[in-house]
Amino acid sequence: MITAEHFAWELRDGVGHVTLTGAERKNPLTFESYAELRDTFRALSYEDDVKVIVISGSEGNFCSGGDVRDIIGPLTEMDMRGLLRFTRMTGDLVKAIRSCPQPVISAIDGVCVGAGAMIATASDMRLGTPRAKIAFLFTRVGLAGCDMGACAMLPRIIGQGRAAELLYMGRSMGAEEAERWGFLNRLADPVEEAAFDLAAQLASGPTFAHSMTKTMLDQEWDMSLPAAIEAEAQAQAICMQTQDFERAYHAFLAKERPVFEGD
Amino acid sequence: MITAEHFAWELRDGVGHVTLTGAERKNPLTFESYAELRDTFRALSYEDDVKVIVISGSEGNFCSGGDVRDIIGPLTEMDMRGLLRFTRMTGDLVKAIRSCPQPVISAIDGVCVGAGAMIATASDMRLGTPRAKIAFLFTRVGLAGCDMGACAMLPRIIGQGRAAELLYMGRSMGAEEAERWGFLNRLADPVEEAAFDLAAQLASGPTFAHSMTKTMLDQEWDMSLPAAIEAEAQAQAICMQTQDFERAYHAFLAKERPVFEGD
Amino acid sequence: MITAEHFAWELRDGVGHVTLTGAERKNPLTFESYAELRDTFRALSYEDDVKVIVISGSEGNFCSGGDVRDIIGPLTEMDMRGLLRFTRMTGDLVKAIRSCPQPVISAIDGVCVGAGAMIATASDMRLGTPRAKIAFLFTRVGLAGCDMGACAMLPRIIGQGRAAELLYMGRSMGAEEAERWGFLNRLADPVEEAAFDLAAQLASGPTFAHSMTKTMLDQEWDMSLPAAIEAEAQAQAICMQTQDFERAYHAFLAKERPVFEGD
Repeated sequence: MITAEHFAWELRDGVGHVTLTGAERKNPLTFESYAELRDTFRALSYEDDVKVIVISGSEGNFCSGGDVRDIIGPLTEMDMRGLLRFTRMTGDLVKAIRSCPQPVISAIDGVCVGAGAMIATASDMRLGTPRAKIAFLFTRVGLAGCDMGACAMLPRIIGQGRAAELLYMGRSMGAEEAERWGFLNRLADPVEEAAFDLAAQLASGPTFAHSMTKTMLDQEWDMSLPAAIEAEAQAQAICMQTQDFERAYHAFLAKERPVFEGD
Repeated sequence: MITAEHFAWELRDGVGHVTLTGAERKNPLTFESYAELRDTFRALSYEDDVKVIVISGSEGNFCSGGDVRDIIGPLTEMDMRGLLRFTRMTGDLVKAIRSCPQPVISAIDGVCVGAGAMIATASDMRLGTPRAKIAFLFTRVGLAGCDMGACAMLPRIIGQGRAAELLYMGRSMGAEEAERWGFLNRLADPVEEAAFDLAAQLASGPTFAHSMTKTMLDQEWDMSLPAAIEAEAQAQAICMQTQDFERAYHAFLAKERPVFEGD
Repeated sequence: MITAEHFAWELRDGVGHVTLTGAERKNPLTFESYAELRDTFRALSYEDDVKVIVISGSEGNFCSGGDVRDIIGPLTEMDMRGLLRFTRMTGDLVKAIRSCPQPVISAIDGVCVGAGAMIATASDMRLGTPRAKIAFLFTRVGLAGCDMGACAMLPRIIGQGRAAELLYMGRSMGAEEAERWGFLNRLADPVEEAAFDLAAQLASGPTFAHSMTKTMLDQEWDMSLPAAIEAEAQAQAICMQTQDFERAYHAFLAKERPVFEGD
C-alpha cells in the first residue's frame, strides 16, 4: 500500500495519481519529496494493483523544480559527499521512474522546469496544455545542462540539436514547439482529463504486456540491434503465453471486443 | 537467382521488387511468407545484380501483419519452444532486411500494421500515400509493443516519446502525421511509381558505395562516436579505391554527368 | 594563442570566430585547412579564454566541402595508406570539434555541402538563413554516405529515416526543411549576427558549467541510461562547487541578475 506525505497520492481503477503539491510556490521539489518520490516509484515494482501512473501538479502548474531556498541554499554549503548524495538521489528518482513496470504519463500545465522538466522527460508519455512552459533551466542557476540524465534522454526525444540548445540556453520550450518537436505527445486542455483517458485505456488493456513494453523500451536503450531483436523475441514469446493473448484471439473469432485482465 | 512462392518477386534494371500478396485479406503474413522473406533477404547478400529493393503490397494495402487465423490461432496453442521459434524467425526477417547490402524502400498504401509496420520500419526509406495507415497494433491482440525490434528502431526514427505512444496504444499513425514525424520520407501517389523513381536513381548511382552506406548505417547503431568515425574512415577509404570515384572525378573535369557502374 | 593561416580566426569577448575562406570557390576545404582546423579545435581544449566558437563562411556561403581539384584529384591517385591518412584526418577534425570544451555554433548561409555539412553536423547548434542549402553529397562523387561520422551523427539529429535519405541520395536539404527536421535550430538573417547573440549569451553565462554540458552531451553518446545518470550526478556535483552556482543563489536572494564569471 502506497502512502505519501510530501506529495498527494491516489489510486483509482488501477491508475495511480501522483500530484506534486505546494501550489503557492508552483509545486517545488524538496529533499523530502525527492526521496519520497524515489521510494514510491521503487515500491511500484511490487504493486501489482497499480497499472499506470499519471503525474501532475497542483493549481495550474506542474513543478518549479528544486526549491531555491530549501534546496539550492543548502547545496551551496555542502561538501562533495553531501552534493553527491543529493545528485545521486535525484538521479535515482529518474532510474526508478524508468524501471517501474507501469507506463508513466505526465500531465503538464503551466511551469514545468528544472527537476520538474526531468520528471516529465523520464515519463513515457507527456500531454500538455497550451500554457505549458518547459525549461531545463539548470544553466540559469550556474549549473550544467547535465542533470538527472538530461543529456542522455532529451536528445532521444527531440533530437540532438534541439536538446543541445535547450540544455545550453536554459530557455523555455513553449507548448506548441514541444508538440512539434515530439516532447509533448499532444496538446490537451484540461490536460488531466486527457491523461486519465489515456491511462484508463492502458489500465483496461493487456497490462502484463504493457509492463513488458515499458521494460523493453528501457532495456534496449543501449543494446545492439541484433541483441535488441533477440531480447524482443524472448519478451514477446513470454507475452504469447498470457491469457490476454488468448482472450484477444477468442474475442476476434467471436467478433467481440476483447476484455483484458492483465494476466 | 531469387524466386518466390509466397510473395511476388520481380527484378528489373537492378531493382528487386517484393510484392506482398493476398489482397482479399490485405496481404497478411503467414508462416511460409515470413520464412521465405527471411531467406530471400538473406540470399540478397550474394546477389550482386540486385542493387535496390522496393517492397509494396497488392491492391491498395501494404500488409495486415501476421494473419489472425493462420498465425495467431496456432500461436495460442504452442509451447515456449515453438513460440520462440516463431518470434526468432520474425526477428530474423528484420535482421536480414537490415543486413542485406541493398538499400530497401517501402512503398506504403492503405493498411500497414503489425509485422507489416515492422517490415516498413526495418526499411531504409519509406514513402506513403495519403491513405497510408500505420499501426503497431500488437497491444490490440494482447501482446507487448516489443516485437521484431520495434522498441529499438521506432524511437530512432520518430523519437522516444512518439514511439512510446504508438507502441503502448497500438493506435494508427496517419500519413500526414507519419510524414511530419519522419516515419515517411515523403507522401506520394501513386506511391510505387515514386518508389521506383527513387530506386532507379539509386540503381544508376555508385552502388558499391551505397551498399557501404547501408552497412555503416547498420554497423554504427551502437558504436561510440570515436569508433564510428574510425569505422567510416576505413569504409570511405575503401570507396575511394573504386572506379566510380574516379569516374565522378573525370566527369567533373569534362563537365559531364558521371556514369556510375557500381565498381 | 591561436593563429590561423588557412582560415580566418578572430577572438572577441570570449567568442572565437572561425571563418572559412576562399569565397570564389565557396570556401572549400583543402588538405591544409583540414589539418589546421583539426589542430585548432584540439588546441581549444587548453584555451581557457575562449568560451564559445562560431563557425561561418565568407560571402554568402558556408563551405563547398573538399575541393574537387585540390583534394579529390589527388585522392584518386593515392594508395590505401594515403587514403586512410586523409579520411582519418577528416574524422579527427570531427572528433576535435566534439571534444573541445566550448559549445560550437555554425552560422550557415548558402552552400553547406560535403565536409562542410559535416562540420555543421558536428557543431552543437546550427543557425541558417533561408538561403542555406545543406547536402551530404558524397554519393554524387561516387563515394558512400559514411563520411566523418555522418551515419552516426545525422540520425541522432534528424532521425534515422530522414538521415538515410539524405545520405543515400546526396540531395539538398533546404533551410525550411532543415529547421522543421531539427537540423537547424532556427532560421535567422543575417545569420552571423544571430549566432553572435547566442554566443554572447553563452560567453556571459556559467562557462565552466557549459563546458561540462558539452563534455557530457558527447560522453553519454553510447552509455547505458543508468551509467549516464551516474555520470551526470558526478558532473553536476562538480558544478555545484563552482562560484557561479553560489553567485546565482546570492543574486536570487538579492533579486538581481546573476553575473557569472566561469569559475
